Amino acid sequence: MPEYPTALGASSLNTITLLGHDLAEDVMGTVGFGELAFWLATQRRPTPGETRVFEAVLAALADHGFTPTAIVTRLTYLSAPDSVQGALAAGLLGGGSRFLGVTEDCGRFLHSHLPAEHPVDDAGWDALALEIVRAQRAAKRFVPGLGHHVHKQGDPRTPRLFAIAAEEGLYGPHLSLFAAIGRVHPEVLGKTLPLNGAGVCGAALADLGLPLELLRGFALLARTAGLIGQLAEELRHPVGNDIFLSVDLNNTSVDPDPYRGS
Amino acid sequence: MPEYPTALGASSLNTITLLGHDLAEDVMGTVGFGELAFWLATQRRPTPGETRVFEAVLAALADHGFTPTAIVTRLTYLSAPDSVQGALAAGLLGGGSRFLGVTEDCGRFLHSHLPAEHPVDDAGWDALALEIVRAQRAAKRFVPGLGHHVHKQGDPRTPRLFAIAAEEGLYGPHLSLFAAIGRVHPEVLGKTLPLNGAGVCGAALADLGLPLELLRGFALLARTAGLIGQLAEELRHPVGNDIFLSVDLNNTSVDPDPYRGS
Amino acid sequence: MPEYPTALGASSLNTITLLGHDLAEDVMGTVGFGELAFWLATQRRPTPGETRVFEAVLAALADHGFTPTAIVTRLTYLSAPDSVQGALAAGLLGGGSRFLGVTEDCGRFLHSHLPAEHPVDDAGWDALALEIVRAQRAAKRFVPGLGHHVHKQGDPRTPRLFAIAAEEGLYGPHLSLFAAIGRVHPEVLGKTLPLNGAGVCGAALADLGLPLELLRGFALLARTAGLIGQLAEELRHPVGNDIFLSVDLNNTSVDPDPYRGS
Amino acid sequence: MPEYPTALGASSLNTITLLGHDLAEDVMGTVGFGELAFWLATQRRPTPGETRVFEAVLAALADHGFTPTAIVTRLTYLSAPDSVQGALAAGLLGGGSRFLGVTEDCGRFLHSHLPAEHPVDDAGWDALALEIVRAQRAAKRFVPGLGHHVHKQGDPRTPRLFAIAAEEGLYGPHLSLFAAIGRVHPEVLGKTLPLNGAGVCGAALADLGLPLELLRGFALLARTAGLIGQLAEELRHPVGNDIFLSVDLNNTSVDPDPYRGS
Repeated sequence: MPEYPTALGASSLNTITLLGHDLAEDVMGTVGFGELAFWLATQRRPTPGETRVFEAVLAALADHGFTPTAIVTRLTYLSAPDSVQGALAAGLLGGGSRFLGVTEDCGRFLHSHLPAEHPVDDAGWDALALEIVRAQRAAKRFVPGLGHHVHKQGDPRTPRLFAIAAEEGLYGPHLSLFAAIGRVHPEVLGKTLPLNGAGVCGAALADLGLPLELLRGFALLARTAGLIGQLAEELRHPVGNDIFLSVDLNNTSVDPDPYRGS
Repeated sequence: MPEYPTALGASSLNTITLLGHDLAEDVMGTVGFGELAFWLATQRRPTPGETRVFEAVLAALADHGFTPTAIVTRLTYLSAPDSVQGALAAGLLGGGSRFLGVTEDCGRFLHSHLPAEHPVDDAGWDALALEIVRAQRAAKRFVPGLGHHVHKQGDPRTPRLFAIAAEEGLYGPHLSLFAAIGRVHPEVLGKTLPLNGAGVCGAALADLGLPLELLRGFALLARTAGLIGQLAEELRHPVGNDIFLSVDLNNTSVDPDPYRGS
Repeated sequence: MPEYPTALGASSLNTITLLGHDLAEDVMGTVGFGELAFWLATQRRPTPGETRVFEAVLAALADHGFTPTAIVTRLTYLSAPDSVQGALAAGLLGGGSRFLGVTEDCGRFLHSHLPAEHPVDDAGWDALALEIVRAQRAAKRFVPGLGHHVHKQGDPRTPRLFAIAAEEGLYGPHLSLFAAIGRVHPEVLGKTLPLNGAGVCGAALADLGLPLELLRGFALLARTAGLIGQLAEELRHPVGNDIFLSVDLNNTSVDPDPYRGS
Repeated sequence: MPEYPTALGASSLNTITLLGHDLAEDVMGTVGFGELAFWLATQRRPTPGETRVFEAVLAALADHGFTPTAIVTRLTYLSAPDSVQGALAAGLLGGGSRFLGVTEDCGRFLHSHLPAEHPVDDAGWDALALEIVRAQRAAKRFVPGLGHHVHKQGDPRTPRLFAIAAEEGLYGPHLSLFAAIGRVHPEVLGKTLPLNGAGVCGAALADLGLPLELLRGFALLARTAGLIGQLAEELRHPVGNDIFLSVDLNNTSVDPDPYRGS
């Protein structure tokens, strides 16, 4: 008979524990939700500074207005109002490589380029960053986290998150390398691109020691709160049906055409 | 051309706002994640006391060990490790009427039975509760939030959440009615059942003024953090394949049988 | 140790069986996909006539153009092109009570109103239908399957499905009652409404003896084929980004407002 | 104002068209479901031979017993029986890289290795296959579609699908290359591995000219029918709760441990 070990939730007749602690006495009313999410993911209670950086990241990623994920949640709720879980799940499914994936891609990219021995000063980080940006350019690959289609002159979340991490003593190697990329890339690319907010969030999460495989998961956690906000607003001022009609009423029938290979 | 008004996230070349505030300056580093989730859902910033009650509810619902939702997330990750969003979404889809729905059912039930004029003392609440429990019994319907398959002698989350709400001055009519149901039901049912944790969470969320249609959504937000914890544990100590094999290796082939109506 | 009996797929070193048959020799190349889907759901091989009615229903429900489900699948693919399963799943999640649910609602409604002894002629069916429509009206409830927002003068799928079922000798009590509702409702409601396609599909599926709890599932199966068609078209002539931008560029920021209860 | 062209479903007051045809008159009752799914995906009506190969593939992939996807659908239904769409969507979300992805991976792999000029005889295909298998081995990469954890002496679906495709004159370059890989790989790898069923399905779908980006989608369509079969069986002989309990009752609480990096 297989056994299934876990350090997460457990219960017996009179007790409920979470992460080895009494849920009612030691967690409820004491542990904040961001703190708890960090704890669940690492099985290590974060310090107040770690919690602050983590919650700043979640705030940065919670909602970006009428993104595809927000539209999807509203339309799914319109179509199946009996299933809030379905509306939220549908929205989260848009959290893939393109719209929410930059956070994870950037964290992983930075991590994979950190040498065993970290540089000790800005000059060292700049030299490393220069090498990395040059290699990406030679391979005709983008640097994750570099560039933004709206905030072309700078993403306001980026300097703020650098500052918060520094205040909390959590400005580690991933953020250092990301900042260096921001300084040196114009020399290679011939133009200045902003370090975007999704990217700096990935760097900050990696510096917090969170599992790289789940960085996208934290973006999704933040977005779950945002999607609940979207649903709450949809309940009060619905736009889902207008969105649906604006597409459906502007459809034009065209002749079928055979698929022409790939 | 339709317009789509929103008070949630918005951005322009140099600014990003969330709920009418500067995201970088006024939200990141300042607003906790539970506080932000409340704010997004109500478009009203909660007080510290409201945040504490809200986060206590989220802690109570975050993870209950190897529930169907947790197993589903682990199995989906086993099967499609390239898509963390799919594993989380799959787990959330189990958040329906049976396992996570009690929170919403209880909040709505209590709300729908509140009179325009609330009772002013325990005797008044007890009289109201007695009438409600009698009506449910006469209609052969359960009272949502009453009873638990494990914590038969009392769910430890329940007194704790009552206490936290009272400490914060947020012990309102939904909690009052729920407590009264706990006091009077033995007289009608002939046995004492516990007020369960999911139910008290629904009562507390309703007393916070959160939208009743979305009470299940807050349970799902809590569970998203729990499911990330499940995935993090699965990464370190995988059990998904053992679960799969324990089912697959114990399958027994039986003859097909025609469907016999419904 | 629990055992898990199943009559569906099974395999050993040298064989694979499905529904008790050799998959390679007796199913592949011999059993059509509609036939197989029916067989899997009932564990009884359908007759050619049953298969024809079933496939006519699936054709009727496969795609209705830019429905919310279709838009959701395209937007999710735009946002997470790495996960086709996520785009399809997101689209299916809109298959709830409002847009795809009529099929199931209508089949269940008709079934629940069939007497133990069925009427033997149209006059008998009409009398039964009259009673049912009157009761619904008295209770201020809609009759599922009655009315259509576009096909106000008649849904072309409805007479066609009646005819196909009649040709195959599968015009049973659910279709009989549905037809009678179509004949008698003007007398009660004072206006003539069309019997819609989703409703007649539910009646036909119920007459085929398919499980009522899963009638929505067959609508979802049909829609899966339709959503793949939507994705294939999106690959060749993408519109997802235009849809997203048409919403995002027409957003207007408004002031947050406190939630005003429910 | 953007326009959204589509050749799929369209409707007006009195007509409904699908793929440019009258849905009621020309599709319902005439076009089988497999045929329709092919047509929707390519916007070209398949020949009877193409339909037969396509439906043989769908049969091969519809259900494999208690796979993770089947278990997930049953557990989600247990937890949220009000949402059949959620149970099906959750199951499909397991259709990723590991369990259902081989079909797409194999089709894409074969396609990407086809030269502009195809070999004209088996000797030519063998030479090409030899080169490919050697290159994969040198790069320490697997050949998609080669090997099976159960059917070590041969997957019975494979010769059957080769035979059906040959009967219908649809044994094209992808199947030719796949067969050659089956002949030559022992010379390179030093052992004989089976060509698996998922792989041959990918080769056959690619030879049918279906979009490579959606090969996984066809596996998911097949699996949707299988998952409805799983739900139908679960309704009659439920095992979901036993599966849940077999995990939950065998959990063992362990101490939390700090995450140790990645």
